[in-house]
Amino acid sequence: MSELVLGIDFGGTKVAIGVADRAGSLLRQVRLDTEAALGAEQVVSRALTAARDLLDGREPAAVGVVSPGIVLPEEILLAPNVPGWQHLRLRELVAAEFGAPIAVGTDVKAAGLAEARWGALVDADPAVFLSLGTGVAAAILVGGRVLTGANGAAGEIGYNLVGDGDEGFAAGAAPLEETVGGRGLGLRASAALGRPVTAAELFALARRDPAAKELVSRALDELSLHVANLAIALDPRRVAVGGGFAGSNDVILPALRQRLAQAVPFPPDVVAARFADDGALRGAIALTG
Amino acid sequence: MSELVLGIDFGGTKVAIGVADRAGSLLRQVRLDTEAALGAEQVVSRALTAARDLLDGREPAAVGVVSPGIVLPEEILLAPNVPGWQHLRLRELVAAEFGAPIAVGTDVKAAGLAEARWGALVDADPAVFLSLGTGVAAAILVGGRVLTGANGAAGEIGYNLVGDGDEGFAAGAAPLEETVGGRGLGLRASAALGRPVTAAELFALARRDPAAKELVSRALDELSLHVANLAIALDPRRVAVGGGFAGSNDVILPALRQRLAQAVPFPPDVVAARFADDGALRGAIALTG
Repeated sequence: MSELVLGIDFGGTKVAIGVADRAGSLLRQVRLDTEAALGAEQVVSRALTAARDLLDGREPAAVGVVSPGIVLPEEILLAPNVPGWQHLRLRELVAAEFGAPIAVGTDVKAAGLAEARWGALVDADPAVFLSLGTGVAAAILVGGRVLTGANGAAGEIGYNLVGDGDEGFAAGAAPLEETVGGRGLGLRASAALGRPVTAAELFALARRDPAAKELVSRALDELSLHVANLAIALDPRRVAVGGGFAGSNDVILPALRQRLAQAVPFPPDVVAARFADDGALRGAIALTG
Repeated sequence: MSELVLGIDFGGTKVAIGVADRAGSLLRQVRLDTEAALGAEQVVSRALTAARDLLDGREPAAVGVVSPGIVLPEEILLAPNVPGWQHLRLRELVAAEFGAPIAVGTDVKAAGLAEARWGALVDADPAVFLSLGTGVAAAILVGGRVLTGANGAAGEIGYNLVGDGDEGFAAGAAPLEETVGGRGLGLRASAALGRPVTAAELFALARRDPAAKELVSRALDELSLHVANLAIALDPRRVAVGGGFAGSNDVILPALRQRLAQAVPFPPDVVAARFADDGALRGAIALTG
């Protein structure tokens, strides 16, 4: 019987747990609600129980765990979207349950690695995986490896400055994420349209409602400027777009392509990520290989 | 007698030619005016003659040649600041003179490599070398190697979009370079002050003239925003600043440091490049090693 690998993706609203073979094929998976408001440790505890169920009595040969932020032994940095997540000893909790080698990483970077290994970024070097949704972040792939940076924080472009007067990270701000991420878009859409509107609904509305279209258009202008400047810096072969906004790629990808064609000396291909729904879970599994 | 390496840096106004040992120590060097208006081939021809003089009868074990742009066998791309440079067969002309192995590269990338090997970026990974002057470009160092990108164009941040309505590369524009590079700064300074002023003079004037100070301040606001966003993307350990504006580093470095401290989750050190005057020549020599 071949070896099994366990992957767990702790997200702000959902936890995805999967069992895969060593080649990365997902055999079984299950999802739980994060219920972040109830605290971070209960999420991990429920996820580990669900993982045991999924393994059905077998021991994993390796475990990959991803989460937003930088997962350190004593804390998790840069994960403001998950309440209580900061002081979680994530690796320690997982190690108490499973004796196998444990790899931990940042969800978006891991998802980028999965795209490079099995998905839309195979044979593209350098490459960029762009995750658009509640969070806005990128994974930069060089020579098939994700650039972690000196502190694990490479690719966290949600913190990008948008305008000259912006407060930045030091003031608790994430200017680009506030401008084009799900929460900021939803807030502005709700204010403009006079009723609660999510970012996904906004993208759908933009097909017929001029006010919605204007909001989406402005957000895509800003986003595409930052993606263009990132592409100028890296000269990537290909950019793959994933994350929670994947359902709106029919609007997002053409806007990115147009701007990159105008601005980047050698415009990279812009494609949809292969793993639209479970990129970070695939990434957790990729981390073990 | 130890081996000699020849380096040639073809710049828009000067050509630097140097002979070094294999450890990168410059033994002798000479400079010529480019006189770009007289054509590209005459520059190369004069440089090769001067190189022969410098070698004093010895043959180089290797030759490194750098220039702005991407040096291809049939042409040189992205070198708009040097007239006539585009269709130059640079490697072929050098190979006709010297039988040794010839390495060609982009000046700023090579200068970044020299900083990583012998200068201000030793033991910093990842790292960014920023060249500020007539041209505005960067070299991104990952694992001690310069990121070339899929087409050799990584780091050409002079093409960065500055504002939403910017025309970009496809329209012949280089928005960031036009905003903060030497030519644009000089033009705006001359217009504001009513007489011809170079960028270097502008930086000096800014110490006492309010109008000059305002121009410099706006340029540094824009520049520092782009450097901050680049640092967010790469999470570098260190940023070294070189290029023609090195004489104004007392103004430039503090502005960069302040903005990076506000905006970047883990602000990198910002330091002056070690090779202020001959970074690209050192780079040409680094390419041979």
